[in-house]
Amino acid sequence: MAKELKELTPRGVNYSQWYQDLVIKADLAENSAVRGCMVIKPYGYAIWERMQRTLDDMFKETGHVNAYFPLLIPKSFMSKEADHIEGFAKECAVVTHYRLKKAADGSGVIVDPAAKLEEELIIRPTSETIIWNTYRNWIQSYRDLPLLINQWANVMRWEMRTRLFLRTAEFLWQEGHTAHATRREAEEETIRMQNVYACFAEEYMAMPVIKGRKSDSERFAGALETYSIEAMMQDGKALQAGTSHFLGQNFGRAFDVTFVDKEGKTDYAWATSWGSSTRLIGALIMSHSDDNGLVLPPKLAPIQVVIVPIYRNAEQLAQIGEKVSGIMAGLKALGITVKYDDADNKKPGWKFAEYELKGIPVRLAMGGRDLENDTIEVMRRDTLEKETLPCRGIEDYVRNLLDDIQRNIFQKALQLRASRTIEVDTYPEFKERIEEGLFILAHWDGTPETEERIKNETKATIRCIPLEGDAAPGRCMVTGQPSDRRVLFARSY
Amino acid sequence: MAKELKELTPRGVNYSQWYQDLVIKADLAENSAVRGCMVIKPYGYAIWERMQRTLDDMFKETGHVNAYFPLLIPKSFMSKEADHIEGFAKECAVVTHYRLKKAADGSGVIVDPAAKLEEELIIRPTSETIIWNTYRNWIQSYRDLPLLINQWANVMRWEMRTRLFLRTAEFLWQEGHTAHATRREAEEETIRMQNVYACFAEEYMAMPVIKGRKSDSERFAGALETYSIEAMMQDGKALQAGTSHFLGQNFGRAFDVTFVDKEGKTDYAWATSWGSSTRLIGALIMSHSDDNGLVLPPKLAPIQVVIVPIYRNAEQLAQIGEKVSGIMAGLKALGITVKYDDADNKKPGWKFAEYELKGIPVRLAMGGRDLENDTIEVMRRDTLEKETLPCRGIEDYVRNLLDDIQRNIFQKALQLRASRTIEVDTYPEFKERIEEGLFILAHWDGTPETEERIKNETKATIRCIPLEGDAAPGRCMVTGQPSDRRVLFARSY
Repeated sequence: MAKELKELTPRGVNYSQWYQDLVIKADLAENSAVRGCMVIKPYGYAIWERMQRTLDDMFKETGHVNAYFPLLIPKSFMSKEADHIEGFAKECAVVTHYRLKKAADGSGVIVDPAAKLEEELIIRPTSETIIWNTYRNWIQSYRDLPLLINQWANVMRWEMRTRLFLRTAEFLWQEGHTAHATRREAEEETIRMQNVYACFAEEYMAMPVIKGRKSDSERFAGALETYSIEAMMQDGKALQAGTSHFLGQNFGRAFDVTFVDKEGKTDYAWATSWGSSTRLIGALIMSHSDDNGLVLPPKLAPIQVVIVPIYRNAEQLAQIGEKVSGIMAGLKALGITVKYDDADNKKPGWKFAEYELKGIPVRLAMGGRDLENDTIEVMRRDTLEKETLPCRGIEDYVRNLLDDIQRNIFQKALQLRASRTIEVDTYPEFKERIEEGLFILAHWDGTPETEERIKNETKATIRCIPLEGDAAPGRCMVTGQPSDRRVLFARSY
Repeated sequence: MAKELKELTPRGVNYSQWYQDLVIKADLAENSAVRGCMVIKPYGYAIWERMQRTLDDMFKETGHVNAYFPLLIPKSFMSKEADHIEGFAKECAVVTHYRLKKAADGSGVIVDPAAKLEEELIIRPTSETIIWNTYRNWIQSYRDLPLLINQWANVMRWEMRTRLFLRTAEFLWQEGHTAHATRREAEEETIRMQNVYACFAEEYMAMPVIKGRKSDSERFAGALETYSIEAMMQDGKALQAGTSHFLGQNFGRAFDVTFVDKEGKTDYAWATSWGSSTRLIGALIMSHSDDNGLVLPPKLAPIQVVIVPIYRNAEQLAQIGEKVSGIMAGLKALGITVKYDDADNKKPGWKFAEYELKGIPVRLAMGGRDLENDTIEVMRRDTLEKETLPCRGIEDYVRNLLDDIQRNIFQKALQLRASRTIEVDTYPEFKERIEEGLFILAHWDGTPETEERIKNETKATIRCIPLEGDAAPGRCMVTGQPSDRRVLFARSY
């Protein structure tokens, strides 16, 4: 029964169902009673905490500080930047009243009509407007710049079709909002933060990404340029895993944020914003996990090593416990998080399946024979390979193994992407090949019309105009018009 | 000019204005454009981050894990526990719509009437209801218990009179929600977390607290018992700095959360909840700060030591810089956070005033004579005492000084409280003395009527029924009826 409950739909049968099964069965998250809003369960949240801590350190190393701005935004603020409201109006949760009261007929509690707000408030879908309204008072001179502020917060975008982590009405994220004295500084900041995201994705999530610039139609509402990192999931679809926006003077102008520069001239402040969210957990899952469950990169795994005793009786358990306590101390001294699971109401086989499902990178098991031989069994989650090794020196072995797993799953993801990325030069070929789940590098004439046509006919979008790789010009695969360089097409999450 | 801008209203002139000035001028927080919602500025948020990190570690050490539940709660959930909705109905922000659209007359953006929610959603004022609705699916057997979960989140309570940190419509907090198989376990958890809060307040905030139980009328809406920690501010008023609630089976019953116990019997789960918020920052400020600005306990100060060079020319600055870099390395090696302020657009006197205002516990200054003598000037923020000491060994001296400051401000607060806590036996005396700003221990007959009368006539409330101290019975100062023990009265924030 327990085993069946844990079984996942295989990826090959139904990738989307596999993902859904895995999120639920590995206890990462579940849907709540509120449409589109998820509950992030303790195990899922523990992964998020590690992501947060790492990103936060990276933001601070690049000179940023944290602050907190209000959840609610006056409707009029949202409207001040024309493109911005255009982009977000359709998904705004609106607060209209501030009190409940008992129904006169005793039927329960109703919204008190007397407590209607003069101006409706929007639950932030993103905070450019409220933050730039605040910055107006913080910025007078070039000496007040740059302002390098990040916020960890919840945001809400009313989505009709939601999927745990990937697309939810409420999600957790961080949003950086910086103000600068010059265009160049703001542009540099935009790229710096794209690089921070790329570094986090590759070095911590073990997820290779392509850095690029968005096409006009995929830009953030209110931005002059949006930069993103794009990762390939195991089904060949793309997932945007972090965006960094150069906002020009749009919000400076909309909220009248001016400063006096070194020459005494007044100008609008230049802006950037950049964000990443709990969506990254979805990306993490879909990058590495398999039909047995999660595969977590050691650098983000809440538990890196689990130790399971295999024993016949209490005496043997005590002997194993004693032996293991030394190993645990050694692992902890190396900064490795380790759990010893000696719960006696579950069999070792059940525990093995459970920890595979949960993606613990390394499993150690010790039984009676190991006790006799002073050995221990080591299993690595990424390849499921097992070997029996002497206890002596096992701590260093495990440390190296964790590094090896981190590297290996990155390489595996990189190879997958390489094997599923092609160049295509004709539109008929594009239409055929896109069905296979590929990243396709193709020429495009740069017009939104062509982009729209491709999207409607193939469900593929321009994920980005890559910043690196083949930059040779060519001819648009659809119209034959000149193209600056190949751009990246894919279907996406 | 700069100096004037920084000047605070002295506490003796207007304590409330002093607090307000200090929060603004020390760059901790400010009011936002949204009524009652604050912006927590980077320096204020840095204090909150240290509080969070410390509390989070303490929660984890006591076996708790973090998770995240939805911001929005269906109105019907809020109503399921009768006392709970009674307590929160009047301050609920209500979401009624999920879309904006362009006004037909082109006048801007309006709430789309077609996007009205079937059931209104409440922005969480606290999360018992949505969490216990979730726990129903997580709890079946005693094996699923205890469930020890904490959440870091924003909450909203529509307050009419707000004060930065102390009472705001939106605030940041943590809320623990635990489920247990027995009444005793839940009661033990309630007390455990009260003790965690007390330990945090005293050891980290350097703020002595009185642990007690709330009277019936001051209990949390839906609780059987509320325990709190109460601190005395410098004006003699009390501030509740953390609460821990024993919820009995109220929420288990309201949300039908049952489990099968070891004997196979079905019962409702037992609950606790406990919370502390950004209000603690207000408590921290009012416990220690003075007419020159903030006084921060070293354990929570974002910057513990600042070093200011006093120089005549670039050459001297370079010499000081070289000398200081060794001291900084030594301090950092001891785990001390240190900032070197060699900004050349501000004078040392300006910097001194600024860092006093910001409450940096220790200030070091080095000038030309110090260079000659191999000395450095040390100022401690709590007493403003200065001395000049040899550079040799200064790192250890500073480390000990930080410990001493931490102890000293705790002792000072403890002495203030002792000097302003009295026992009173008659109501006329109570009425007179309460005007002085005191904690008064007095006998009370245990009825809400007497409590209400005292509150209406003196603005003093029962802060708590202390768990420690004089427990002798007596006679109520108002009615002469029997009293179990003296309780703590005070005016409060």
